[in-house]
Amino acid sequence: MSNSSCKVVLASTIAKSLLPEIQSEIKGLTENPKLHGYLANDDPGARMYADWTGKTCKENGIDFVLHRVDREDLENEIENANADKNVDGIIVYYPVFDSRRDQTIQWAVSMYKDVEGLSPQLISNMYQNVRFLDPPANTRKSILPCTPLAIIKILEHLHIYNTILDYGRRLFGRRITVINRSEVVGRPLAALLANDGAEVYSVDITGVQKFSRGSGLRKQKHDVEEMQGWNLEKCLPISDVVISGVPGESFKVQTKFLREGAVCINFSTDKNFDPDVKDKASIYVPAIGKVTIIILMRNLIRIIKNRASVD
Amino acid sequence: MSNSSCKVVLASTIAKSLLPEIQSEIKGLTENPKLHGYLANDDPGARMYADWTGKTCKENGIDFVLHRVDREDLENEIENANADKNVDGIIVYYPVFDSRRDQTIQWAVSMYKDVEGLSPQLISNMYQNVRFLDPPANTRKSILPCTPLAIIKILEHLHIYNTILDYGRRLFGRRITVINRSEVVGRPLAALLANDGAEVYSVDITGVQKFSRGSGLRKQKHDVEEMQGWNLEKCLPISDVVISGVPGESFKVQTKFLREGAVCINFSTDKNFDPDVKDKASIYVPAIGKVTIIILMRNLIRIIKNRASVD
Repeated sequence: MSNSSCKVVLASTIAKSLLPEIQSEIKGLTENPKLHGYLANDDPGARMYADWTGKTCKENGIDFVLHRVDREDLENEIENANADKNVDGIIVYYPVFDSRRDQTIQWAVSMYKDVEGLSPQLISNMYQNVRFLDPPANTRKSILPCTPLAIIKILEHLHIYNTILDYGRRLFGRRITVINRSEVVGRPLAALLANDGAEVYSVDITGVQKFSRGSGLRKQKHDVEEMQGWNLEKCLPISDVVISGVPGESFKVQTKFLREGAVCINFSTDKNFDPDVKDKASIYVPAIGKVTIIILMRNLIRIIKNRASVD
Repeated sequence: MSNSSCKVVLASTIAKSLLPEIQSEIKGLTENPKLHGYLANDDPGARMYADWTGKTCKENGIDFVLHRVDREDLENEIENANADKNVDGIIVYYPVFDSRRDQTIQWAVSMYKDVEGLSPQLISNMYQNVRFLDPPANTRKSILPCTPLAIIKILEHLHIYNTILDYGRRLFGRRITVINRSEVVGRPLAALLANDGAEVYSVDITGVQKFSRGSGLRKQKHDVEEMQGWNLEKCLPISDVVISGVPGESFKVQTKFLREGAVCINFSTDKNFDPDVKDKASIYVPAIGKVTIIILMRNLIRIIKNRASVD
């Protein structure tokens, strides 16, 4: 470590801290949860993710079945799994067609089995800051997308969420830059953070948007403002937390722009921060994958519990 | 409350959370701690502070004796108390002469009985970021000044200190404005916060000074930089935390300059924040007195324990 003042926090450490709750919930179930994964490509990242899922599930009493399928058969396979009472949860390893067609595949997964939290109704709930599937009874929690939720669990672990504040407002006062505005990670993440009270600068190649609930959090959910003329140079010095996940050099975070003592989280497979980030950051999380798999299991358990509360 | 998003945290709530530890420490002692107070003026604030000390001590098994003395006799009285084995701790209620002569009185109190933490050696340790009286053994903690330490305990309670970070660096990444630079509160407070890793803007009528340990906390203790041309308008919008205690209107915190979701703490008997602070702050602490008395007791116990570890 180049500087002893920066705390490097590994995903494995955070995953370990989240595991006991998951394990005790699994023990409380009447039978092993059943997760079915669908791999329809040769992407090495997807393959590795699938292998990790299998390994972690097995270690924790979850039955994981990996189906290697032709991508043209994928929607049929998903339909079968949707109807199959022996399948609790479904995960598809993307990219499949690596085009907008992949979204149609997401939509094929039943929202009652969607451990990734990418179904249209779930995504809509998330953007609207609707946290339950059955208001006003509020017994069944809406499922949140895995990677954004993993990052939120990381921020909770790092005490960026202030538990002195009320639930749903625990990021009030935090300014967070999120570099990446993809539909599966960056944009939902910005929305979730803003819904919890943060002022979020969402940065991608098209520019900067601010997600926030307005002065004093008067709005029930976030709204989005275009920040004309803004760029990383302007967002970084005012941000307490910087979360980045984009490949390539152009959006790499230059340490000189960071605020002294910033909290930095990388979710790209590339390293999105310069190695000298540790000279200036208070906390650095170099990767998040192991937390994401924990969240996958957590979503699966939530799905099973939601179903139980309906039965 | 004008806005439900602001959490108003009362000193009584924080005091209550600190009390169990103090009470269990008192129970662990072989006899009741003995605190002697010296009141040599008719200041109503000092009188009230003395009454509160007496009441709180009595409730918690501390023997408190209040001496009403002529101010010309005060140094003699203190000398007697310094020598008296039946006196564990000494507190003088200021102002006495309300001039620099009061400092001579502070110096008369033995550092081994000084519950206020104002003795020259203790103050020097604090500014130098020396935390123990007996390095390198480090068994006897140096006593910190009461009001600054009370504010630190409040910041710990509010989770502004991040326990994920190492001890002594838990404010790394925080920007804090302290309005007041008196020798008994504002300046020691700024130093303590900076020694714990914060970037502190210390504001008084002469201008703004920045207390910090430099980039990446490379310095062992804080140093101080004059911020030419700076004022409250410049400090407030970049501060996560604003701590204020000055009488009168001229340094009153205007809500419009505060950062969205700032944490605001008032330690003046006047209210130093506009009533609409709650429209913008995430947390507001309107007064701190009850916490200060808890810290007085805590310092007394520490003094007794320090003595025991020498015996």
